[in-house]
Amino acid sequence: MKVAILGATGLVGQRFVQLLSNHPFFEITALAASDNSAGKKYREAVQWRLNVPVAEKAGDMVLKKCTPDIDCDYVFSALPSDVAGEIEEEFANAGYIVFSNAASHRMDEDVPLIIPEVNLDHLKITETQKRKGKIITNPNCSTIGFTMVLKPIMDRFGIEEANVVTMQAISGAGYPGVPSMDIIDNVVPFIKNEEEKIMTESKKILGRLKDGKIYPANLDIFAQCNRVAVVDGHMLSITIKTQEKATLSEIVRAFEDFQPLKGMYLPTAPEKPVFYLTGVDSPQPKFHRDLGGGMSVSVGRLKQYSNKQFGFVALVHNTIRGAAGCAVLNAEIYNIFRG
Amino acid sequence: MKVAILGATGLVGQRFVQLLSNHPFFEITALAASDNSAGKKYREAVQWRLNVPVAEKAGDMVLKKCTPDIDCDYVFSALPSDVAGEIEEEFANAGYIVFSNAASHRMDEDVPLIIPEVNLDHLKITETQKRKGKIITNPNCSTIGFTMVLKPIMDRFGIEEANVVTMQAISGAGYPGVPSMDIIDNVVPFIKNEEEKIMTESKKILGRLKDGKIYPANLDIFAQCNRVAVVDGHMLSITIKTQEKATLSEIVRAFEDFQPLKGMYLPTAPEKPVFYLTGVDSPQPKFHRDLGGGMSVSVGRLKQYSNKQFGFVALVHNTIRGAAGCAVLNAEIYNIFRG
Amino acid sequence: MKVAILGATGLVGQRFVQLLSNHPFFEITALAASDNSAGKKYREAVQWRLNVPVAEKAGDMVLKKCTPDIDCDYVFSALPSDVAGEIEEEFANAGYIVFSNAASHRMDEDVPLIIPEVNLDHLKITETQKRKGKIITNPNCSTIGFTMVLKPIMDRFGIEEANVVTMQAISGAGYPGVPSMDIIDNVVPFIKNEEEKIMTESKKILGRLKDGKIYPANLDIFAQCNRVAVVDGHMLSITIKTQEKATLSEIVRAFEDFQPLKGMYLPTAPEKPVFYLTGVDSPQPKFHRDLGGGMSVSVGRLKQYSNKQFGFVALVHNTIRGAAGCAVLNAEIYNIFRG
Amino acid sequence: MKVAILGATGLVGQRFVQLLSNHPFFEITALAASDNSAGKKYREAVQWRLNVPVAEKAGDMVLKKCTPDIDCDYVFSALPSDVAGEIEEEFANAGYIVFSNAASHRMDEDVPLIIPEVNLDHLKITETQKRKGKIITNPNCSTIGFTMVLKPIMDRFGIEEANVVTMQAISGAGYPGVPSMDIIDNVVPFIKNEEEKIMTESKKILGRLKDGKIYPANLDIFAQCNRVAVVDGHMLSITIKTQEKATLSEIVRAFEDFQPLKGMYLPTAPEKPVFYLTGVDSPQPKFHRDLGGGMSVSVGRLKQYSNKQFGFVALVHNTIRGAAGCAVLNAEIYNIFRG
Repeated sequence: MKVAILGATGLVGQRFVQLLSNHPFFEITALAASDNSAGKKYREAVQWRLNVPVAEKAGDMVLKKCTPDIDCDYVFSALPSDVAGEIEEEFANAGYIVFSNAASHRMDEDVPLIIPEVNLDHLKITETQKRKGKIITNPNCSTIGFTMVLKPIMDRFGIEEANVVTMQAISGAGYPGVPSMDIIDNVVPFIKNEEEKIMTESKKILGRLKDGKIYPANLDIFAQCNRVAVVDGHMLSITIKTQEKATLSEIVRAFEDFQPLKGMYLPTAPEKPVFYLTGVDSPQPKFHRDLGGGMSVSVGRLKQYSNKQFGFVALVHNTIRGAAGCAVLNAEIYNIFRG
Repeated sequence: MKVAILGATGLVGQRFVQLLSNHPFFEITALAASDNSAGKKYREAVQWRLNVPVAEKAGDMVLKKCTPDIDCDYVFSALPSDVAGEIEEEFANAGYIVFSNAASHRMDEDVPLIIPEVNLDHLKITETQKRKGKIITNPNCSTIGFTMVLKPIMDRFGIEEANVVTMQAISGAGYPGVPSMDIIDNVVPFIKNEEEKIMTESKKILGRLKDGKIYPANLDIFAQCNRVAVVDGHMLSITIKTQEKATLSEIVRAFEDFQPLKGMYLPTAPEKPVFYLTGVDSPQPKFHRDLGGGMSVSVGRLKQYSNKQFGFVALVHNTIRGAAGCAVLNAEIYNIFRG
Repeated sequence: MKVAILGATGLVGQRFVQLLSNHPFFEITALAASDNSAGKKYREAVQWRLNVPVAEKAGDMVLKKCTPDIDCDYVFSALPSDVAGEIEEEFANAGYIVFSNAASHRMDEDVPLIIPEVNLDHLKITETQKRKGKIITNPNCSTIGFTMVLKPIMDRFGIEEANVVTMQAISGAGYPGVPSMDIIDNVVPFIKNEEEKIMTESKKILGRLKDGKIYPANLDIFAQCNRVAVVDGHMLSITIKTQEKATLSEIVRAFEDFQPLKGMYLPTAPEKPVFYLTGVDSPQPKFHRDLGGGMSVSVGRLKQYSNKQFGFVALVHNTIRGAAGCAVLNAEIYNIFRG
Repeated sequence: MKVAILGATGLVGQRFVQLLSNHPFFEITALAASDNSAGKKYREAVQWRLNVPVAEKAGDMVLKKCTPDIDCDYVFSALPSDVAGEIEEEFANAGYIVFSNAASHRMDEDVPLIIPEVNLDHLKITETQKRKGKIITNPNCSTIGFTMVLKPIMDRFGIEEANVVTMQAISGAGYPGVPSMDIIDNVVPFIKNEEEKIMTESKKILGRLKDGKIYPANLDIFAQCNRVAVVDGHMLSITIKTQEKATLSEIVRAFEDFQPLKGMYLPTAPEKPVFYLTGVDSPQPKFHRDLGGGMSVSVGRLKQYSNKQFGFVALVHNTIRGAAGCAVLNAEIYNIFRG
C-alpha cells in the first residue's frame, strides 16, 4: 500500500516518517511540504528533532508540493490547521483516503474522529461522505489520552463528570514552537484552543453512533491546560464521578481488561492500550512515555474519594499515540476492514 | 523585639533570614540549627540557595543548638517535621512564642493554623494552650495559596466542592531535595503527604471558630499534586462549585475586594493578598511569583462553566507566602494584638 | 537629559527601559520600535520577559517609529543588526548621540567600541566622525565579560594568548529566540557570528589609540561558543598565557585593584567591575549574575598551570553588563566628559 | 561466559545491566550491591533511571553482597570510589577478572587504563600484576571522549598542547547526584577531581608501553570542567596545537580513518569510534549521544586557527561509552585475546 505524508517537515510529520519507514503494510512513496520546501531533499529541508536519525530512504526523497497528483492510496496529513482543511478536502475529493491529524475537519458531521480502541464503530459515518475518497481524523493529543482512560470506566460504570488538568510537553507546540524564554523555570497555564478541543472532541469520540449520526456523550467535562518543561509526553490529572458505584479494584480491572483490538494483527497497536502502573509516583513522562512503543496510555496514582469519585493520573506520548501513531493505527485498521 | 530562627540553614530557614534581616519590628538575635552545624558561622554552615546574597550580620552569626536557652521573644521554626514537634514544644513550654512552618502541630486542637487574611480570628484558640508560651503555625505552602483564593469566593457565594491540581516548584522539597535526574524533562505526580495536607489543613483554616474550638469547613476537596521543573512558585489549577449563583465579574470583584488587613501597619502584608491578573496566559511562576514581594497570590484564567461552576489558576510563592513570609506576617500581627 | 530607546520591545530594549526608568541623569521621552508596533502602547506591544514588572510610565508610552524626529539628546539603540546600521546612521547624521548595542558599526574605524573600565580613551576617536551627532557602540555580550577580565591581567603582565569557551544564556538570542525543543536537555555548540565577534572585537577593545586611530591588540584569541539552558548570564571558561611571570595572588590582586572609574559619580558603575569570588564552585549564573546590579563580571576558580599559564571562569550578565547596562554606562560617562 | 555486576543499583550499574542483558558473549549470573540492598530483588532495590525498562531476568535477581564468592568469570565494577579499591582487590586476588569503572586503581602502575581503540597494547601490563586474577580499568567519562578524539590526530601529526572545557551531564554524578536546585537555570563550574583526572589519566592512556611499563605522553593538557542541565552526554570544547602542520581535511580524514578494531567481532564496538559530523551546529547531546549505540564519540565544528592550531567539539555518552560500555568492550576484547 503506497502512502504519502503531507506536512512531512514538522514535528508530527517527522513522527509519521519514523513510524512509516519500515512499516509492514505501508510504503512511503512521497513526502510533501510547503511550496517553500518543495524541490529540496527531505534531509536538507527538515529540522529533524527526533533522537533517532532520519531513515536513509526518506532522507533522500525530494519533497513534493501538497497537490493531489501523488502516486499513492493513503495520505497522512500533519499539516498545520490553517491550511489543512482545504488541502485535505482536495485530496479526498480526488479519491485519496486521508488520515488527518489536523483539527480542521475533526468536528465535521460526516468525519469520524477515531481512536481504534475507543470508537472504531464511528468509522461507519464515512459512508455519509460525498467525497470520492474519505477523510478520517484522529483527535487532539490530550484528548486521545483523556478519552482512552475514560472509555473503560464509562463502559462499566458510566461517567457523569470528568475534570482534567493537563501538563503538556513542548513538542505539542511543534517547531520552533515554545520559546525557551517562556518555559525554562516556568509553567504556562494556557494553550490556545486546547481546553475547547478536549471538551468538544471528547464528547464526540465517546458519543453514540445511531442512524449514521454521532450523538455526543452526555457528561460534564472541565479542562484546564498547562505547558511544562517536558520534551515529550502529556500528563493528565483527572478526577471523575461515575454513574454507578465502583471500587478501586474494579477500576483497575476495567483498565486491564481494556483490549478491544486483541487478536487483530495491527503492527502499531500496543499490547496494553491502557497500561496501569502500580508505582507510588507513576506514570512519569521521562520514564513511561515510550511504553508500548509510545502507543500505550499509562495510568497510575488511582485514588478513591467516595464510592463514585476517583482520581488518577494519565500519560500519553503526544506525538506518537497522541498524533502520528494514532493516524497510522487508524490506517492499519481501515486497511483491514476495507480488505 | 528579639527573634530567633530554628532550622536556619534549610531553604525555608534562608527565607526567614532574608525576610527578618532589616525588619522594622524584629531583630535576629540567634540562628539555630542541627547539632552538626552548631558552633559554625552561619555563612559557612549554610548552602545558601537564594539569588540575593546573605545579609552581612546574619552571615557572621555563630549557629546555636535548638535548645530553649536563647535570648529572644519570638521563635521562628523552619525545622524538618521529624524533629520540629518536640523542639517546638520545648520552646513553647519554656515561654517562647513559636511561629512554626512545620507540619507537626498544625492539626493540634489548640494550635491555630493561621493565614492572617483568612482566619485571623482562629488566633483565639491559643488561649486554650496550656504552655507557658504559645505555638502558632502556618499552613503547608500549597494550602496557603489554595485557601487564600477560596476564601473571598466562599465568603460571598459559599463553596460546595473544590478540585485542585498542583504543579509545585522544586524549592518546596528543600535542599538537596529533588534530584535533577528526577525532574529535568519530567513531571513527578507524587509529593509525599501533600494531597492529604491540602485536604485536611484547608478545612481547618476555612473552618469556624465557636466556643474556643475550630469546626472544619464543610466542603469537598479533591487534590492531586505534581512536581515540575520550576525553581520557585507553586501553580494551582482549580475548579469550584459554589453554593450560590455567581457571575465572572462578581468573582473578580470578590478577589479584588479581598483586603482584610487594609489599614493595619504590617510590613510583610501585600497590598493585594489576591492579585487578579487579566493576561490571557497569566499567572506564570517566572513572571508573577514575586508580586507583592512574594506575598501576593496571583490568580488568572478565570472561566465560568455554569452559574455555579468556575475554573481558574492560582500561583503562590512557596517559600515566601507559602512558608517563611506567612510565619513572619503571623508574628507581625500577633505582635500588634498583644500590644 | 532626554533619552529615547530604539528597538524598545526586544529583550535588550526591555533592559534599557528597566535601567533608564528612574535614572538620575536620564529621562525617557520616547520609545521607538518597528513600524508594526508604532502607534501601540508600549505595554501592549511588548512581550515583557523580565521578572520585574514594566515601569508604569514606560508602559503607558505610545511607541514611535524609528525616525530621527524624536525630542531627545541621546538615543539608545537595541535594534536588530539587519536594520540598525542605517537607522543609527540617520540619527547620528541628524545630530543625535547614539549609544548602540548593535553590531553594525562596531568595527567601523571612526566608531569606538567602549567598555568604560577598559578603554575609555577610545572615546576620542569619535572626533574623527563626520556626522553631526555621534555613534558610540558597546561590544557583544560575551566580549564584554571576556575583555573586562583580561584587561587587569594584560595591564600588569601582558597576554600572549587567550582561549575562551563560552556557555551562553538563552536571553542572548532575544525573544522568541532559542526554541525550547533545541535547548532543554541539550547544549548547542554554535552561535552565529559569535566566535568571530569575540575574536575581532576583543582585539579592537584591548587595542591602543595612537594618532586618532585604534591599533588592535596583538594577542592570539581562540573562542568556541555554546548555548546552554540558562536564562541569564554567560559563563566563560578561560585559559591565558601571560607575557611575564605571575603568581596566583598577583592575578587576584590585579582583579581586585581594577577600579578605573573609582571616585566618579556614575550611577550604573558597579563598585567592583571584576568581582573575584573564592568559593570552590563560583561563579554560577543563578547565584552571581546580579552582583553589582548585574554590572559586575564575577571571576572564580583561578588556577595556575605554569608561571605564565592560568585558567579561570568568568560570568557576565549578558543583557545588563553585556548589553543595555554597558550602553547606559557609556552614556553616563560621555555625559560627564561632555559637560 | 558468566559475569557479575558489583554496584548494580547505581546509574552506571544500571547501564551495565542494560548492556549485559541479552549480550551474545556474556550472561549475568549475579548482581551485587551494598549490604543494605543485598537480599532484595533487584527490581525493588534499584531506583531505575534509564528510559528503557529493566530486563525481566535481571529485575527478578536477588542482590548479593560484594564478596568474592560469586559463581562467575568476569566481574564488572560500578562501585563508588570509596569502597571500590578494596573490594576489587579482593575479587582480583580471588582469581576473578575485574573490569572496573572506578577510579581507585586507574593510576596503579600495573593496572591498564584501557580504551580498546586507543591503547589496546597497554593490556600487556596486566602481566605484571601479582594477583591471581586481574584488574583492568576504563578511564573517567570525559577522559574517554577526550582521548578518543586526540588519538587519531596524535598518531598522524603529534599533539603538543590540548585545552579542553567540558559541559557535563548530570547523570555523570550518579543518583541522587546533582540537586535540581543547583542546576536548573544554572551552570556549575566545578566537578570534584574531574580536571585532575582528565589531566593525569589522559597522559597515561596516550602514553607509550615500553619494557612492561607505561610512560605518560608528553603533552600539555589544560582542563576546565562544568556541569550543565543535560541528562546524558558530555560535551567537550577542545583546542589543540599539533607538532606538525595539518589541514582541515587531513584532520577529518584522521577521524574517519580511525577504525582500529575493524574486522574484529566485538558486539559493543561501534562502526565509527569517532563519528565526524558536518552539521553547522553538531554534535549536540540530545540528538547525537546515542550514535553507535552510545559508543561513538561524535565530533564537529572543526576549525583551523593556524597551520598547527585547531578547535573542535566532541560529545561522549558518559554512562555508555564513558563508563559501562567501555568496560564491556574491554571485556569483549580481553575475552578474544585470552581465547
